[in-house]
Amino acid sequence: MRLTNYLLPTLKESPADAEIASHKLMLRAGMIRKVAAGIYSYLPLGLRSIRKVEQIVRQEMDKAGAMELLMPMTVPAELWQESGRWEQYGKELLRLRDRKDTEFCLSPTHEEVITDIVRGTVRSYRQLPMSLYQIQGKFRDEIRPRFGLMRGREFIMKDAYSFDLDDASADISYDKMYRAYQNIFNRCGLNFRAVEADTGSIGGSSSHEFMVLAESGEDAIVSCDSCDYAANVEKAQIRLNNQQPPQAVGEVAEVATPGRKTIAEVANFLELPQNRLIKTLLVQTDTGEQLAVLLRGDRELNEIKLCRFLGCVEIEMVGEKTVVELTGAPSGFAGPVGLTCRIIADHEVRNMVDCVVGANAADMHCVGVCPGRDFEVAEYVDLRQAEAGDGCPRCEGLLQSWRGIEVGHVFKLGTKYSKALGATVLNREGKDVPLVMGCYGIGIGRTVAAAIEQNHDDNGVIFPMAIAPFQVMVTLLNAKDEQVVSVGNELYNTLLSSGIEAVLDDRADRPGSKFKDADLIGVPIRVTVGGRALKEGAFEVQVRGGGERQMMPVAETATWLVEEVQRQLAG
Amino acid sequence: MRLTNYLLPTLKESPADAEIASHKLMLRAGMIRKVAAGIYSYLPLGLRSIRKVEQIVRQEMDKAGAMELLMPMTVPAELWQESGRWEQYGKELLRLRDRKDTEFCLSPTHEEVITDIVRGTVRSYRQLPMSLYQIQGKFRDEIRPRFGLMRGREFIMKDAYSFDLDDASADISYDKMYRAYQNIFNRCGLNFRAVEADTGSIGGSSSHEFMVLAESGEDAIVSCDSCDYAANVEKAQIRLNNQQPPQAVGEVAEVATPGRKTIAEVANFLELPQNRLIKTLLVQTDTGEQLAVLLRGDRELNEIKLCRFLGCVEIEMVGEKTVVELTGAPSGFAGPVGLTCRIIADHEVRNMVDCVVGANAADMHCVGVCPGRDFEVAEYVDLRQAEAGDGCPRCEGLLQSWRGIEVGHVFKLGTKYSKALGATVLNREGKDVPLVMGCYGIGIGRTVAAAIEQNHDDNGVIFPMAIAPFQVMVTLLNAKDEQVVSVGNELYNTLLSSGIEAVLDDRADRPGSKFKDADLIGVPIRVTVGGRALKEGAFEVQVRGGGERQMMPVAETATWLVEEVQRQLAG
Repeated sequence: MRLTNYLLPTLKESPADAEIASHKLMLRAGMIRKVAAGIYSYLPLGLRSIRKVEQIVRQEMDKAGAMELLMPMTVPAELWQESGRWEQYGKELLRLRDRKDTEFCLSPTHEEVITDIVRGTVRSYRQLPMSLYQIQGKFRDEIRPRFGLMRGREFIMKDAYSFDLDDASADISYDKMYRAYQNIFNRCGLNFRAVEADTGSIGGSSSHEFMVLAESGEDAIVSCDSCDYAANVEKAQIRLNNQQPPQAVGEVAEVATPGRKTIAEVANFLELPQNRLIKTLLVQTDTGEQLAVLLRGDRELNEIKLCRFLGCVEIEMVGEKTVVELTGAPSGFAGPVGLTCRIIADHEVRNMVDCVVGANAADMHCVGVCPGRDFEVAEYVDLRQAEAGDGCPRCEGLLQSWRGIEVGHVFKLGTKYSKALGATVLNREGKDVPLVMGCYGIGIGRTVAAAIEQNHDDNGVIFPMAIAPFQVMVTLLNAKDEQVVSVGNELYNTLLSSGIEAVLDDRADRPGSKFKDADLIGVPIRVTVGGRALKEGAFEVQVRGGGERQMMPVAETATWLVEEVQRQLAG
Repeated sequence: MRLTNYLLPTLKESPADAEIASHKLMLRAGMIRKVAAGIYSYLPLGLRSIRKVEQIVRQEMDKAGAMELLMPMTVPAELWQESGRWEQYGKELLRLRDRKDTEFCLSPTHEEVITDIVRGTVRSYRQLPMSLYQIQGKFRDEIRPRFGLMRGREFIMKDAYSFDLDDASADISYDKMYRAYQNIFNRCGLNFRAVEADTGSIGGSSSHEFMVLAESGEDAIVSCDSCDYAANVEKAQIRLNNQQPPQAVGEVAEVATPGRKTIAEVANFLELPQNRLIKTLLVQTDTGEQLAVLLRGDRELNEIKLCRFLGCVEIEMVGEKTVVELTGAPSGFAGPVGLTCRIIADHEVRNMVDCVVGANAADMHCVGVCPGRDFEVAEYVDLRQAEAGDGCPRCEGLLQSWRGIEVGHVFKLGTKYSKALGATVLNREGKDVPLVMGCYGIGIGRTVAAAIEQNHDDNGVIFPMAIAPFQVMVTLLNAKDEQVVSVGNELYNTLLSSGIEAVLDDRADRPGSKFKDADLIGVPIRVTVGGRALKEGAFEVQVRGGGERQMMPVAETATWLVEEVQRQLAG
């Protein structure tokens, strides 16, 4: 490809609405262009990286024995009604009507469609196991699309589905996919972790997320420093501390805390560490129950754990009016002593003594409080967000915390969809049994964005070789100098015929501006043709994101480049 | 690929709602599966052919210098409002609203989006010419989706767009694409014609359609028997007959034609050939004008030619009430003599004498009528549908007629979209000028369907090698016989490692049923492993759609197959 007629609209400045590095750099490098909120065109450069990720995904899916198919983006409501998700799914499911007023959605995921295909065509255990996948444009009407391809509305996804006769076989299919995912993200050159995760609106019994580690990641994850336990904090368990609680020494006493409502304010005022306070959260479930949830003052509630324990879909903090009804005081002074609603507490609270709680009276707190002695807790549960330093639930190690970007998610679905849609096969005994399913997603565009979050510097993207839009950039220092043009073209053509994805910067621009563009778009290796080096029979070669510029004899450069590309691809 | 675990739901019977061969066979061969009216899933077998066409298209686009990009399916209304098509496009444009009530459409074509990309990024003539393309799922809310992939609602299309500084350069871009299209359909192994066509709702100054010739084609096309003129009948011109009209001999006289209204009825009743009658059509334009249109009795009106002449978008026949108002008689008896509305006539009418027209009185016609003498014609125009035997407009040859399936369409757009959206570049003189555009579509799924229409027999599909889902089928006669399995697997693996796309029928089914499936799905070459042949050290080889079964020594078969596949690919 020659840059003169290439659509490469690089920008000097970051667009104002881009917040994170990948979003800024993909816009600046001319990889994507916004069409509407969360909706982008992939320009030629961006599409090249997208296609490389797709190709790696496709090869590993095929290797894992999955078959590619392609389902439609517009899916009739009736299939979603059969699974029950038409009602359950919120506004992220974009619903529409065709000219005959039939209802459809733009499908964000295809469990219903694939189950419908399989229920009509697979009838015997002999055809199992079967895995199917597609790479396809999807739509999810995000309330707050942002960060470019990271959280878009229309996006490219690989979704795969496995069908098995029983759980044991389904576990094997799941493991195959899990390994395929490891291969995929390794081949993409990414630093990632597979972590245990919540199953959310997809459902099923268990799941893993594949997280690319990056500071800007929206997800918090923890991993053990001595075993291979790793989980999204949404899901992460914490090792129980089975120490006996210390003996209580104080008595309950009320103290005035005028205007101090938050944990920080009260701890400051009383000159106590926050872990001596108990946080009392008054919450309400979507089924209408109101209850108090206690946590150590310096901990955060994990709403997903709480919902799982309560068996509800959503909880919310109660409003001011309800706070007054439940506690007799304005918000900021709630405490468990004397409360009549159900009280549940995080495990850690059991071991607390002589602590501070709200007094259920305006501007007052209680000190010297002991759980069990001064108030009853209906149940102690794992309710808090895991943090760095917490004990690993699997071994004696400690948890470390990371930020991650979810690029893949694998689910054991069980029979949720096959039962709802009546997808059964005859088993060995000739009996109809529901298929056991798994589903497996990869955000293709998000993988490219995550790679950029993980691999960039102040000058631009530093693409891993495997997903770089081009492998080698040949930059002509002076595109009007006949010798430069002739030697540069020769190198460029040699590279192309050696199977290297080369790009020739033959534009009439100044060298500095060309170097800036090369750095910005992140081509892994740049060869500069011209100047003093060429007079001495050499090219200047520079590996992006590391290493000095080095002089290389003209005659040796092509061979060296071919080997270096192979070396980097091999990783 | 081994068929045991392959999703290949072949059907013995054609589904009731499938009318044409490709629709029936794609369903029966398990290539596609209906999700809703005009919306299909591409099953693994079907997707393989789709991808092969895509790959041929991609290679030829790249060779023609076009860059691939990918635009979204959901496009904001505002872009379509800028071009004016939001109002012009009918219900085929599926409109929808997101959760914030912003209006979008599912884009059936991307002139607006691509022009928006280019207007923001291409600023100088130095960057031109530039051609961009995408291969993407599109949506068109057809009122009557039918014929499977032939006229679907969600479909895969390649759309390309060219941008040039001026008309001369745009013509060069157009010719490049035209040649790329010829290469594409040749490589797909199709018998096709490029024909002149109407530009329809896309607009522009001229266009060509690429038509796959097939009896079931929805389009009628004509081509000259001696020059290379070819056109859709919608557009086809007809050589003017410049002979002097014969001298009129008769006088106008009214004759009773009780109850005879149609041309056929009147001609029959009067015992005259239909070409002695003049057909009087009373039509109304979308701007409200009412006029009479005359044609020789045996000819058909071409509404597109009429609309072009009148400068309107649609015409319709007037209702009974208006017929009575205009003629004083019920419909079936209209004629030009004495009519007060504007009268226009097809060129052929000028040369008619002593002919029959309606008398504008119930159950009466006039005979002995001469145009010009007995009534005035405001203008003679080319208004009729071309037919086989008509004179070629370019030479002295005669037109032949064909049925065709439109698989590609190329348009010279001119500045329609660049002017509407303000897409300009600085020309050599530093002046802002609107870009001159072309657009170029190929229906990917329709190309596969058209290939099947053109290549099938009673037993199933006969795929051209280049787009066959698999190239060679290895059928095990008895999948439980160890020798058969071992020899068959060896051949299968040899073929795979030689780069042949082989499929192994290792299912436990009866041979007859396996042969039926092989014929149905149209794999170009089948090798049967087992039986008497194997005992004699041979395989049975059969080329689909032609030729005897032939015995081939085991040791020679793989080499022969590799050569035969190459030979067929070379075409």
